Amino acid sequence: MKINIKGNVMEFMRFDSDYMEGAHPSILARISETNFEKNTGYGLDRYSESAKEKIRAACGVPGADVYFLVGGTQTNSTAISALLSPAEGVIAAETGHISVHEAGAIEAGGHKVLTLPQSFGKILPAVLRDYLKKFYADGTRNHMVQPGMVYISHPTEYGTLYSASELQELRDICRKYEIALYLDGARLGYGLMADGTDVTLPLIAGCCDAFYIGGTKVGALFGEALVIPRPEKVKHLFTVIKQHGALLAKGWLLGLQFDTLFTDRLYFKISANAVRTAKKLEEGFKLHGYKIFIGTDTNQKFIILENEKMRELAKMVSFSVWEQFDDKHTVVRFATSWATTDEEVARLLEII
Amino acid sequence: MKINIKGNVMEFMRFDSDYMEGAHPSILARISETNFEKNTGYGLDRYSESAKEKIRAACGVPGADVYFLVGGTQTNSTAISALLSPAEGVIAAETGHISVHEAGAIEAGGHKVLTLPQSFGKILPAVLRDYLKKFYADGTRNHMVQPGMVYISHPTEYGTLYSASELQELRDICRKYEIALYLDGARLGYGLMADGTDVTLPLIAGCCDAFYIGGTKVGALFGEALVIPRPEKVKHLFTVIKQHGALLAKGWLLGLQFDTLFTDRLYFKISANAVRTAKKLEEGFKLHGYKIFIGTDTNQKFIILENEKMRELAKMVSFSVWEQFDDKHTVVRFATSWATTDEEVARLLEII
Amino acid sequence: MKINIKGNVMEFMRFDSDYMEGAHPSILARISETNFEKNTGYGLDRYSESAKEKIRAACGVPGADVYFLVGGTQTNSTAISALLSPAEGVIAAETGHISVHEAGAIEAGGHKVLTLPQSFGKILPAVLRDYLKKFYADGTRNHMVQPGMVYISHPTEYGTLYSASELQELRDICRKYEIALYLDGARLGYGLMADGTDVTLPLIAGCCDAFYIGGTKVGALFGEALVIPRPEKVKHLFTVIKQHGALLAKGWLLGLQFDTLFTDRLYFKISANAVRTAKKLEEGFKLHGYKIFIGTDTNQKFIILENEKMRELAKMVSFSVWEQFDDKHTVVRFATSWATTDEEVARLLEII
Amino acid sequence: MKINIKGNVMEFMRFDSDYMEGAHPSILARISETNFEKNTGYGLDRYSESAKEKIRAACGVPGADVYFLVGGTQTNSTAISALLSPAEGVIAAETGHISVHEAGAIEAGGHKVLTLPQSFGKILPAVLRDYLKKFYADGTRNHMVQPGMVYISHPTEYGTLYSASELQELRDICRKYEIALYLDGARLGYGLMADGTDVTLPLIAGCCDAFYIGGTKVGALFGEALVIPRPEKVKHLFTVIKQHGALLAKGWLLGLQFDTLFTDRLYFKISANAVRTAKKLEEGFKLHGYKIFIGTDTNQKFIILENEKMRELAKMVSFSVWEQFDDKHTVVRFATSWATTDEEVARLLEII
Repeated sequence: MKINIKGNVMEFMRFDSDYMEGAHPSILARISETNFEKNTGYGLDRYSESAKEKIRAACGVPGADVYFLVGGTQTNSTAISALLSPAEGVIAAETGHISVHEAGAIEAGGHKVLTLPQSFGKILPAVLRDYLKKFYADGTRNHMVQPGMVYISHPTEYGTLYSASELQELRDICRKYEIALYLDGARLGYGLMADGTDVTLPLIAGCCDAFYIGGTKVGALFGEALVIPRPEKVKHLFTVIKQHGALLAKGWLLGLQFDTLFTDRLYFKISANAVRTAKKLEEGFKLHGYKIFIGTDTNQKFIILENEKMRELAKMVSFSVWEQFDDKHTVVRFATSWATTDEEVARLLEII
Repeated sequence: MKINIKGNVMEFMRFDSDYMEGAHPSILARISETNFEKNTGYGLDRYSESAKEKIRAACGVPGADVYFLVGGTQTNSTAISALLSPAEGVIAAETGHISVHEAGAIEAGGHKVLTLPQSFGKILPAVLRDYLKKFYADGTRNHMVQPGMVYISHPTEYGTLYSASELQELRDICRKYEIALYLDGARLGYGLMADGTDVTLPLIAGCCDAFYIGGTKVGALFGEALVIPRPEKVKHLFTVIKQHGALLAKGWLLGLQFDTLFTDRLYFKISANAVRTAKKLEEGFKLHGYKIFIGTDTNQKFIILENEKMRELAKMVSFSVWEQFDDKHTVVRFATSWATTDEEVARLLEII
Repeated sequence: MKINIKGNVMEFMRFDSDYMEGAHPSILARISETNFEKNTGYGLDRYSESAKEKIRAACGVPGADVYFLVGGTQTNSTAISALLSPAEGVIAAETGHISVHEAGAIEAGGHKVLTLPQSFGKILPAVLRDYLKKFYADGTRNHMVQPGMVYISHPTEYGTLYSASELQELRDICRKYEIALYLDGARLGYGLMADGTDVTLPLIAGCCDAFYIGGTKVGALFGEALVIPRPEKVKHLFTVIKQHGALLAKGWLLGLQFDTLFTDRLYFKISANAVRTAKKLEEGFKLHGYKIFIGTDTNQKFIILENEKMRELAKMVSFSVWEQFDDKHTVVRFATSWATTDEEVARLLEII
Repeated sequence: MKINIKGNVMEFMRFDSDYMEGAHPSILARISETNFEKNTGYGLDRYSESAKEKIRAACGVPGADVYFLVGGTQTNSTAISALLSPAEGVIAAETGHISVHEAGAIEAGGHKVLTLPQSFGKILPAVLRDYLKKFYADGTRNHMVQPGMVYISHPTEYGTLYSASELQELRDICRKYEIALYLDGARLGYGLMADGTDVTLPLIAGCCDAFYIGGTKVGALFGEALVIPRPEKVKHLFTVIKQHGALLAKGWLLGLQFDTLFTDRLYFKISANAVRTAKKLEEGFKLHGYKIFIGTDTNQKFIILENEKMRELAKMVSFSVWEQFDDKHTVVRFATSWATTDEEVARLLEII
């Protein structure tokens, strides 16, 4: 979209989110190549099988169950339903995606989201430990929803990351209380490729009872890979997926995409691009004297803008308005993606 | 896939279903062309808007709400939940897709499927009228699930079609009892292009409170267009769709597909191809002396095979085993699609 | 209620159901005696504890969990929810109470009722075996609700009874397929005291994964005792009961009632009264030349009445109209209860 | 229960809650008197009809629907389900009974509880107004649960009361946003008879779309009267009640109780007793130098006890431990009831 700013005709720029482009070209190529093949439906095709094997290998869990679903809310509500018993709820940060922006999908499935105070989007192990300790000391706890699972997002909705030791601590607390640990990896690639992180897919597979590797925001047209490292306990998951309307008829489209993403480390390489361009973007803002709201190592950068400046910028570039900072300033989010180019970032930094 | 039958190397043929290929090439082309555009998510993009306008025009209901969802089970469970109140259930043929093959999605949403005897997949108006008359005469009816909606599929799971007057009769019964009429159009194109049908999109829009135009089985990669002709009564449908995990982040992918299908009548043209090739196939079977189980005018043909013959054929071609006919015969289904070629049908007829 | 039939003033008689009177006087007495005691709520009182012990002893399962709930629909929906996983449904006879007259309570909890053809209210073992065999042979079964439990009522809605060997056969089938067996004992006392039955509480406890001993229809003001013979597998049942609104605040009222019913075999003695008076009633009808629709050994008797006779009788006595027999006859049900007197039956037999 | 404190044999006293006794003797008398009458079930009897009429008159809403249910959690989850559409949730104080102590009953019915900060158990109109204003200004609100109802308890869980003008203000806000107002009156009698309140039944009926008059805690054995002042909008409520397992078979037991309570203002008279004895109790504590945590005008009194004193008292009297006040003090609750005697209060004040 062309815009005209005081006589300068320029392209309007968009940094509002990481799901604004289609898919990595090699994915589109494979979808085109195989278009007139006749494939078995519902994920029972050879591409899905191949993709599952590659994901099991990347996670170091040869016995894992892997299912491909279409989107994040769908994956969360399906997995959480499958893993909880009727009296149980799921613990989440009050800013967690399931707590706020999934339109009550978890509750529609019959389960309460038990919210905990968050720390830049994270549930700190100490906060979880304290909550569970108090819960089990409460004489009225049998009249309350039972904690059955902990939901975390990694990266979080604030672009922050857990460390390996934090994940292990959360796992230890969950095991002590015999509750499941579930990780929402809508943007997992961007977390795995962040500078300085010590979290890997095998570590996640070792800590979590279920997690998903996000495709929609990381190079796929759509799709999320749900991984159940130790599947013995989960009953009839294929049917639960179907019941949630989450079983794609042309399942090979998901298989093809994840097979491509997990060939030659494509998933990791394109994730690294988002992290790199986001870092450049952040450094540029800093250089121009802008204040950073939360320092993150992933593809989401939270900048504090003067309100007047924000309105001016909004004519040339889109971003997400996050929250009020003070009377005169607002926190906004700029997100890069697997497809963001250096040139786009350079053009953005010119106009700020 | 090549197979070797007694020295003849030939391509294995597949007629098991109509969702075995990808998408019409013009759809793939548009997805590729627009791949690096940055689009607004969740169906709020210009392609979705354009597609909605074209569908409203094709249905003759300018005030309709149109939403694009990903798959059939998802669309059914979302629409049915949105339209029913808690004590209400949905009436369906005992062979209806929601009665059998949606893994209890309707019940998972809290509503009973009230099954009626079917006639080749259809609910006959007389059967519905009789059921409702008996229900309202039953002194214990307040202890029973209240009929709140009638679900029909068109074409049905048996490839059969309602006539315009049957649809109007169902509508009249529903209006008398103040219950909704919902039409599952997973294969709607194949019904609209059937020989001799008098059912059109405007007629459907005039009779039904909600229906969907199937894309997954009719030329799209995936996608169904849910149409609510008179949307005043349905609360918060966007949010209900999100709650059901049925809101695609990259909604423009759905918009692009339906915009393409409803440009230059592509949806109707490619549907006609399936109907035409299916007719050829059926005629070929008849010519070779095979018995037809149910005569249909759509893309699904139900043939009675001797069991021995069936096993032999299965080495060279795939089809769906439908039901036992008698001790020695089985009913099988051959389905063509928008992508079936005359050559494929000719090859099939050679081997039978 | 006095009525005047051709100058004769007489008491109108009621045989429509077995829940029309209050409670056995010894229950009312104990409720009065303890009225100003201050008891702990929610079933954690000493009367409930005592009643549980007596029920465990009567069933021969010292390790069983026993909970007291208020009514039958509530108990069914709570127990079934607690025992099923999300993709599972419950198999029931098409005439089962949960299939017809519980207003979709099971579906409201997310689970489908999978109906089987019935034989005078019963699921015959052969019918169940055949259904399960076909289900597991069906290639599309993963798209269908998984059978997770068999629901039977004993006595059934038709007053009929399973034999011990039928119950054992059902149990064996359930165990083979690893699904639960649940028995709805709303009228259990009347079954246990039927002439010629070989079914006992310990036999039921040995066959079923859960069952309830009905109080509402058998001498209590209200209340059902849910028994889980092997409780290890059921998570958080107390909380599930609370979640279903089925946890009575003044739980001791339930404890007191069941403690009374299971002291000195009161439950069995008063049940025997209903069976005995019903037998007398049936014999009287036979003697007067009436035809019996289904022969039962319990407190429900199904008589075929000429329509004209039915209308005439209805002026003097109430009964339940069950179903049309033919153009000129109707099946009606007369039910006796723990409170029915010989005098009432004698008066009924006078007027027929 | 007798206890021996340093050689003094005394009766152990209980002030933990208001549901520890049975029922007002005149209720027990009527249940006994009518025990062998044969009544129609499910609330269709003459006692229920009479009680409904008396309640309609007391509330000043002749057109209201009145239903009798068994308990509070049951009534809340049934009414809330019946009034909300699928995408809607219910706003409640974070201390509301449905938020904490109903085991996720609302979520099990598919709806989120949207918690707001509380002020001694109340939702202040300003807090509600602010929340709704922000919600409707939020660009992502379509991805969030829609506020469909406000739940308040009166008296609250902290024994506090809304004023008439606060209720009217809440009503005005709800009407502006077209959401329902629901009042949980588990202890309503104690609120209506509080000193200085200006809230009456007709005022509540004029402000609320649904509310219930609590019986379980106010003189009945069990039972709550759900009132829907303008019933036109609520579909199939009888069936929804049955679906929730909340339809008592022997519904006349509820009718009899409420008929008794609403004859000669018994409900109000016995409520006044609880308020009066509670006031005496509070004054006694004050006189002995104890600090009051929250001043209330109802039957729940919140006292701050030194921890050592609390442990000592607990040997002689039971109360509810509410929350920690500081390292050395705890907040405890003493509750009186319709049955509390002056003598009990006097004995309590002797030992403190």
